[in-house]
Amino acid sequence: MQNIVNEVESKCREAKSAARKLALISTEKKNNALLNMADNLVRRSAEILAANEKDLTQARTSGMGAAMLDRLLLNRARLEGMAQDVRAVAALPDPVGEIFDMRTMPNGLRIGKKRVPLGVIAVVYESRPNVTIDISALCLKAGNAVVLRGGKEAVHSNVALANLARQAATEADLPEGAVQLIQSTDRAAVSHLLRMKDFVDLLIPRGGAELIRYVSQEATMPVVTGGIGVCHIFVDRSAQVPQAVSIAYNAKVQRPTVCNALDCLLVHADVAPSYLPLIAREWASAGVEIHGDKRALSILAPLPSLKLVPATDEDWGKEFLSLTVAVKVVDTMDEALEHIERYGSGHSEAIVTEDYSSAMRFLDEVDAACVYVNASTRFTDGGQFGLGAEVGISTQKFHARGPLGLKEITTYKWLIFGSGQVRP
Amino acid sequence: MQNIVNEVESKCREAKSAARKLALISTEKKNNALLNMADNLVRRSAEILAANEKDLTQARTSGMGAAMLDRLLLNRARLEGMAQDVRAVAALPDPVGEIFDMRTMPNGLRIGKKRVPLGVIAVVYESRPNVTIDISALCLKAGNAVVLRGGKEAVHSNVALANLARQAATEADLPEGAVQLIQSTDRAAVSHLLRMKDFVDLLIPRGGAELIRYVSQEATMPVVTGGIGVCHIFVDRSAQVPQAVSIAYNAKVQRPTVCNALDCLLVHADVAPSYLPLIAREWASAGVEIHGDKRALSILAPLPSLKLVPATDEDWGKEFLSLTVAVKVVDTMDEALEHIERYGSGHSEAIVTEDYSSAMRFLDEVDAACVYVNASTRFTDGGQFGLGAEVGISTQKFHARGPLGLKEITTYKWLIFGSGQVRP
Repeated sequence: MQNIVNEVESKCREAKSAARKLALISTEKKNNALLNMADNLVRRSAEILAANEKDLTQARTSGMGAAMLDRLLLNRARLEGMAQDVRAVAALPDPVGEIFDMRTMPNGLRIGKKRVPLGVIAVVYESRPNVTIDISALCLKAGNAVVLRGGKEAVHSNVALANLARQAATEADLPEGAVQLIQSTDRAAVSHLLRMKDFVDLLIPRGGAELIRYVSQEATMPVVTGGIGVCHIFVDRSAQVPQAVSIAYNAKVQRPTVCNALDCLLVHADVAPSYLPLIAREWASAGVEIHGDKRALSILAPLPSLKLVPATDEDWGKEFLSLTVAVKVVDTMDEALEHIERYGSGHSEAIVTEDYSSAMRFLDEVDAACVYVNASTRFTDGGQFGLGAEVGISTQKFHARGPLGLKEITTYKWLIFGSGQVRP
Repeated sequence: MQNIVNEVESKCREAKSAARKLALISTEKKNNALLNMADNLVRRSAEILAANEKDLTQARTSGMGAAMLDRLLLNRARLEGMAQDVRAVAALPDPVGEIFDMRTMPNGLRIGKKRVPLGVIAVVYESRPNVTIDISALCLKAGNAVVLRGGKEAVHSNVALANLARQAATEADLPEGAVQLIQSTDRAAVSHLLRMKDFVDLLIPRGGAELIRYVSQEATMPVVTGGIGVCHIFVDRSAQVPQAVSIAYNAKVQRPTVCNALDCLLVHADVAPSYLPLIAREWASAGVEIHGDKRALSILAPLPSLKLVPATDEDWGKEFLSLTVAVKVVDTMDEALEHIERYGSGHSEAIVTEDYSSAMRFLDEVDAACVYVNASTRFTDGGQFGLGAEVGISTQKFHARGPLGLKEITTYKWLIFGSGQVRP
């Protein structure tokens, strides 16, 4: 136990000390670190894959399922993909150093803000080892030191990748200690990390609902929570039916295991009889199971070869992360808005409509990170929103909402240029 | 106990429900609510002062000291001052509704952000009853509902002021429940409030170090901490001596009881012999007591009628909030920067220098909310920084740093205008 405490504390302390120097490092050096990282992912792939193989062997022995094994797997193609992503981050503009809101006050003080790194960012994540590289690259680019704590099942891969990231940083003359990986796989390491308020400026949990709940309850430092997306699409009475089919199909089927996929379709009663059979047939061809309310079922029941299940109370507000969707017929837009307010998770919500006032009302009244008119919720993503990359997606309102890019892992300080001013 | 839990929970719930409607209220109505509030502070002053008299009587009976009694005291002039401040907030631009960062993506999606209220802001504060009005006005103006929990000693004044604010809001057609005051004076009410994560979007503690520590440890929702200012001024070797005297005098003496007042003066050894006697004489005329290190004392000891005390370890990093100052002679700017890094609270730090490179280095390397060149730290204030007013001063890095104006108690949501886009 004391070993775990010592490891966590000494690594957080080293990260803090590195962060002070990292805040002053040139963009060029930070970019060089990222380019080294990308090169080494390819050049040293044998070493990384050997470490990954150890994790895979253990996982197979312990009876891990195919989907989880796939998340854990690295191969040459995936390493090359990771290297590409790191090069893309290197190519993004550096957020640090921007001076903004500068003004001259009546007393001659020049007052403004300068964008600076947050300091130390700790990330607690589960199986996928590529997160080790993604997060290291984003944090370093924004001038932050990083403390990583990956899943137990990926520990060999994570150690190899974090070593690679650390060496890439050091070779580019970044301060020692800017990339830290907590190797202890004991849960006590996470619980101790959550107490490191003096060294960690922001903690990001990336994983399932249980991890996120635990971290937001126990952390003593600021936390960005998110990643839980209970997403709705409301097909308004005035929707263009083919467009509504294409959007709801894409939002459910294009990648059903992610947080911005569709969970619940709300359909205006006026359009339900013409619309529901069309979307249901498309979904059926992709293997989607529909949990429908009574009115949806009464429209869909006569159709052949649909997977239909009567919806229960648990279906509303559920994040399915699979080819299942809840469907409900509503009589009014008010009913749709109330449903979203009650069951949405504040992630991504969409309306499909041709009615201008309905579109504007939906944008105004829905309280979520991302509110869409006539587009798929699948666009909620740092890359798609033009941020280049993301460390996560926030569903809280504080600090940043939606995809978190480089700018969102920085803060600012006030600069005041005086010439002897004193307060009267 | 159950009564307390019920009061806290029902008031937070009502605030949440009001917040949803308040987010959509026009600027004009919000301003009307504030103007009503200002008018009623003057018109109904007899009623407020009668309530305040009850608090004062109890406080005198319980043996409260003169400084605390003065903080508690309301009179006609103070009520008029409060009304003026509320009118000033009404005159500020409404931050809500601003659309920014709007761009068209290559796929034709128009993506941008819209500024929206945070929702429900809870504030836990101590003796001064004017906070009840200040915070209500700022929160309502930014479209937030507010849950207030003032000090036990001011409960009669706070009830009268919160009633006034609530009525002013309702008369202006703002939703019922937008202003809530928790009347229970039991500490359990605060501890229960800290668990109201589902209803409270941001909690701001305003008070002493103990309150702030307790709240940041126990709160389950985001917290803005601040208000603890251990402020340094570094007088560099190249400083203009008269300017450095005027700045250090102002920062220590103009209002010594506040967080942006000077706590520790660091003086470069080259300028200490000429500078220290001058500032010490000025301070002596205002009754300032100097806790000096050995070198400072050896310079100052020969001078008549100074209050000199040898500094102890506890003097470094101490927020004095009184006419006491710590003074240390340093040999280099590095030593000054290290001292500030070790002992500063991240609030306000200043350098006095004529050397351009020293000024730039200080601005770059000091990690604090507000970093000054050649000006008094006393300017750290929402009004002085051009924000019009402030709900507090943040010394954390997350969300907002330094004075928190109207914009800092808002957040944003992403708006996405599509024309049928789906993700390939």
